[in-house]
Amino acid sequence: MTKFEVKILGCGSALPTTMHMPSSQLVEMNGKLFMIDCGEGTQLQMRKLGARMSKLHSIFISHLHGDHVFGLPGLISTLGLLGRTADLTIYAHIEMETLLRPILNFFCKNLSYNVNIVPITKSGFNLIYENKSISISSFPLKHRIATTGFLFKEKENMRHIKREMIDFYNIPIREINNIKLGADFVTPEGDVIDNLHLTTPPNPSRSYAYCSDTAYDKSIVPHIKGVDVLYHEATFAESELNRAEKTAHSTARQAAEIAKMAEVEKLVVGHFSSRYTELETLLHEAQAVFPKTELAFEGKVIAL
Amino acid sequence: MTKFEVKILGCGSALPTTMHMPSSQLVEMNGKLFMIDCGEGTQLQMRKLGARMSKLHSIFISHLHGDHVFGLPGLISTLGLLGRTADLTIYAHIEMETLLRPILNFFCKNLSYNVNIVPITKSGFNLIYENKSISISSFPLKHRIATTGFLFKEKENMRHIKREMIDFYNIPIREINNIKLGADFVTPEGDVIDNLHLTTPPNPSRSYAYCSDTAYDKSIVPHIKGVDVLYHEATFAESELNRAEKTAHSTARQAAEIAKMAEVEKLVVGHFSSRYTELETLLHEAQAVFPKTELAFEGKVIAL
Repeated sequence: MTKFEVKILGCGSALPTTMHMPSSQLVEMNGKLFMIDCGEGTQLQMRKLGARMSKLHSIFISHLHGDHVFGLPGLISTLGLLGRTADLTIYAHIEMETLLRPILNFFCKNLSYNVNIVPITKSGFNLIYENKSISISSFPLKHRIATTGFLFKEKENMRHIKREMIDFYNIPIREINNIKLGADFVTPEGDVIDNLHLTTPPNPSRSYAYCSDTAYDKSIVPHIKGVDVLYHEATFAESELNRAEKTAHSTARQAAEIAKMAEVEKLVVGHFSSRYTELETLLHEAQAVFPKTELAFEGKVIAL
Repeated sequence: MTKFEVKILGCGSALPTTMHMPSSQLVEMNGKLFMIDCGEGTQLQMRKLGARMSKLHSIFISHLHGDHVFGLPGLISTLGLLGRTADLTIYAHIEMETLLRPILNFFCKNLSYNVNIVPITKSGFNLIYENKSISISSFPLKHRIATTGFLFKEKENMRHIKREMIDFYNIPIREINNIKLGADFVTPEGDVIDNLHLTTPPNPSRSYAYCSDTAYDKSIVPHIKGVDVLYHEATFAESELNRAEKTAHSTARQAAEIAKMAEVEKLVVGHFSSRYTELETLLHEAQAVFPKTELAFEGKVIAL
C-alpha cells in the first residue's frame, strides 16, 4: 500500500501554550503533502518535525479564525526564499483573497511562484480536488463562522492479478492493466476467463476526515461514514459542556458520539483548550463512548 | 538601580531554522516591557521564556519585512483573549496601518483594548516615546526599505543624598527631592549648604541601541555614541561581504567597526543568516575588531 499518513503539527486552540501549537496538520498521500490549516508557527513546526517543504502540494483552510491561518504569510514567504516554482493553491472561504492578497503583495513581492486562492463552497458536500488516485472533499461544520470539514479519500484501488494465472494463461503484459481494472481475459483460442478467477480484491480505499472547529453536529455523519481515521475537535471536557455550546465547540464525549455514529475505525481528538494541562479526562470521557480514541499531540503520526 | 534588561526572543533572519526564530526582543525598563519587532512565533517565545504578557507596554517595529512583523496578529489576538484593557501602541512605518488594520478588523473583532498604530518618521533622529524616567528615539538605518534603529535611554538620574547630611542638618523630608535634583539647602539660620556637599553623583543614565536590519552605515554612529549595549545585525560572515552589500545587511566585522567607532560598552550581534549552523566565525571576526562582542541567542538576557 502507498503511504497515507497524517502528521499533527499543532493541536491547540486559540490561545497557544507551551504544550500546544495552533492548528495545522499534514496529510501525505501519493508522495504529496496536503496541509490542513496553518496557525502561527506552522512553518517552524514543519522544520522541527522534519516535514519536507518541497513536498507541500496545497493548503486547505477550515475557517478564517486566526489560530487556523496566521501562519500563512510566513510559510508562503519561506517557500519563496526556498525557490519554489510550482503554483501553491490555498482552498479557503471567500474572504481569504481580500485578506491575504494585500499582505502577499506587500511582503512577498517577486515571489518565485504563484499563490492561487480558491474559494470553498459554504454548503453541501463538494469535491474540491482530485487526481487519478485521490479525492478531497469539503462539507459544512457548525461553528461561529463558516467552517468546513475535509474528507481525504483514496479512489478505488485496482484488483490484484494472481501471478500464477499470468503464467498459466500466458497473459501478455498489455492485458494486465485491463485485468486489474476488472476485465476478463480472452485466450487466443477464444475462451473467456472470468476476472474473478484471475484476480483478488483490491486493497480497500482508505479515508481520513478532519472536523475542526465544530459544535456537536450529527448532520456530518453521512459525510464521514466509515472513515479509517476521524480527527474531531474536542476543545472541552464534559464539565464545560455549556461553554462548548456557547462557543460552538465540542466536548470529547461529543466527538466520540460522532465517531460512534459514523462507525469510524479510529478517532483522534484535538484542538484542546489551553485550560487543560493534562488531557486524561478528555481521553477517558471519549473512550467511555468510543474506545478506539487517541489524543492528538504535536509530532503525532497517524498511519492509515 | 532599577531593572533595565533586554531579552532576546528571536535573532534569526528571514528563513527561520530549528536554531533561530525571527526577530523580536523585549526591553524591560521601569517594570514595563517594550517589544522591538515581532516575527512569527513571538508570542510563543514569550510563553516559553516566561515573559509576562501583562507587562507589555508598546511595540516598536524597525521595518516592514515579514520576519519582523508576522507575529503581530497572533500576539494582538492573544492579548485580547487574556483580557487586556490598556491601549497597545505600535510604532511602525506608515504602511502598517493599511496592512494591519484590515486583519485586525476581521480576525480580532471585539478586542477588549485599542490598538493604536503610530507612524515612525523615516528621516532624522526623533523622540518617539518618553515618560518621566525614559526616552525612546528612532533614527534611520540603511536597508532595502525604510528602516529605523531605536535608542532606549534612561533620563538623567537624581543625585544621591548622603544619609548623614540629612541627620546632621536635620533636613526636612519636603526638601529631599529638590536636593536630589541639585538644589542647595538653606538652614533655618540662613546658611546655604552647597548641593555638592550634601550629595554624591547620580547613577549614570544607561542606554541600549537596536540596529537591525542595516547595511554598514557610519552615519548612525552619532546616534548610538557611548551606549551601554549595542545590538547590531550581523547577518553574514566576512566571506559573504558581497552578499551583505547586495542585500543591505552587515557582516559581523562591520557590526564591530560600528561598535568601535561609537565607543559602546558592549556589542551583541544577531539576525544570523540561516546558512550558519555554528556562529564561531562571526564571533571571532567581530571580536578581532571589537573584543567586547557577544552572540545573541534565543533566551539571552542582557542586563544593563
